[in-house]
Amino acid sequence: MGFCFGVKRAIEMTEKALASGETVYIVGDLIHNKAVIERLARKGLKRISNLDEIPAGRKAALVIRAHGVPRETYVEAEKLGLKLIDATCPFVKKAQLAASQLAASGYHVIIIGDREHSEVKGLLSAAGEDSTVVSSLEELEGLELPARIGVVFQTTQPIDAAGTYLAGLFPRCAELDVHNTICNATFKRQDAVSKLAPRVDAMVIVGDRHSANTKRLTNIASELNPRTIQVESASELERAYFEGAHTVGVSAGASTPDWLIERVVEILERW
Amino acid sequence: MGFCFGVKRAIEMTEKALASGETVYIVGDLIHNKAVIERLARKGLKRISNLDEIPAGRKAALVIRAHGVPRETYVEAEKLGLKLIDATCPFVKKAQLAASQLAASGYHVIIIGDREHSEVKGLLSAAGEDSTVVSSLEELEGLELPARIGVVFQTTQPIDAAGTYLAGLFPRCAELDVHNTICNATFKRQDAVSKLAPRVDAMVIVGDRHSANTKRLTNIASELNPRTIQVESASELERAYFEGAHTVGVSAGASTPDWLIERVVEILERW
Repeated sequence: MGFCFGVKRAIEMTEKALASGETVYIVGDLIHNKAVIERLARKGLKRISNLDEIPAGRKAALVIRAHGVPRETYVEAEKLGLKLIDATCPFVKKAQLAASQLAASGYHVIIIGDREHSEVKGLLSAAGEDSTVVSSLEELEGLELPARIGVVFQTTQPIDAAGTYLAGLFPRCAELDVHNTICNATFKRQDAVSKLAPRVDAMVIVGDRHSANTKRLTNIASELNPRTIQVESASELERAYFEGAHTVGVSAGASTPDWLIERVVEILERW
Repeated sequence: MGFCFGVKRAIEMTEKALASGETVYIVGDLIHNKAVIERLARKGLKRISNLDEIPAGRKAALVIRAHGVPRETYVEAEKLGLKLIDATCPFVKKAQLAASQLAASGYHVIIIGDREHSEVKGLLSAAGEDSTVVSSLEELEGLELPARIGVVFQTTQPIDAAGTYLAGLFPRCAELDVHNTICNATFKRQDAVSKLAPRVDAMVIVGDRHSANTKRLTNIASELNPRTIQVESASELERAYFEGAHTVGVSAGASTPDWLIERVVEILERW
């Protein structure tokens, strides 16, 4: 549970840049955790919505967030003379590379994931124009498909669903080149939660409500143990919820910092 | 039902060679239908088990059967100076090409099909040494898999099972390049039988007991209609079997000639 390799790396890269005294901007959120974002803001990280908010000619650095950004952001940042600190998760980077290589090899690229998620927007940009986002099995049904299909997955997709997508795609095309871009850390957390949840009286998932991978852990746990709650921090815990529970399972999303998890565990142990 | 494109083409190529007065050899069976093979033998086709049965220096033609042959047969035939009549089904040829291209691109090639079938032996030879035949989902379980997997299917595999294989393979590799080498004629016959079988009082599948695609039609029909029989010819029909049946469905494998099917239909209509 907790920080994955990509999240840890993104925070370390950002903190290092801030410590060097540079002016450091970021478009959007570095990771999907409010507590971490607030801490970095206190250390000086300037969050903007658009690159044009940076004063012209300003000597500054730009952090690329862990979920990645569309290609255009790189182009614009270079035009503005910004120093790039690319904190894109290496697994997301690999998925972006797979998407653009498949497109270059003439495949129509299907990106399986949540089209509203920033990672998927980055993947779509990497794949270029000849690509489609598919967010559900139902969407697949109605799709007109060319003969040669390349497939990449949002890194946080559940691996079992991936197989179902492939089984649905295969009969409808001549060739399917699928890159397994699903991140092992995601899979391990999901697997651990599905083993833990049925064995305990109650489950607590710690993590931000905007974090896709945390939400998925909560869903997996809820299906196996109806007494499951997700909290963003220890302050949301209510004693009454655990009435009569002897064992409580705890897990946390890949963007949840250890200190948030530890405080939850401390309180549960006290109770 | 009945002859597919590849079977029709193979018979026509062989008959044309025989009509030209050449000495024509074949290793193994042109297609899996005894009646057709006997007819071609009467027209002069010489069936051998091995190329070394051809007398040295003999000016002759060699027919490559519809299911294809291993690469070595081509090499040996050239050495012997034989004229090649390549009646390999174009869909099998495409699957052989896919297997060898995947191997050349560095994929470990998995061939999904019946390892005892001549088509699969040809595919295995096309894929070269870095390849594995998988004949059942159970076999997949125990397999050690490298990161990059190429997949081709025996052309007569059922398309639904194909999806299950892919779902099983995907979580265990980094990239999966799958060629849909399943033949449309196979799929259409299976689909037609699965629609027809539940609507009739009895089903008759006409075709050779060595024909993999015919056997599969019989299995599909049997599951949907327990009163299903497979016959190799009209002479195997027994009137008692159809006692009380008002409607009888008839289908036939891709290697079953029209005249065998017609005789079955004639008798059923008379009864």
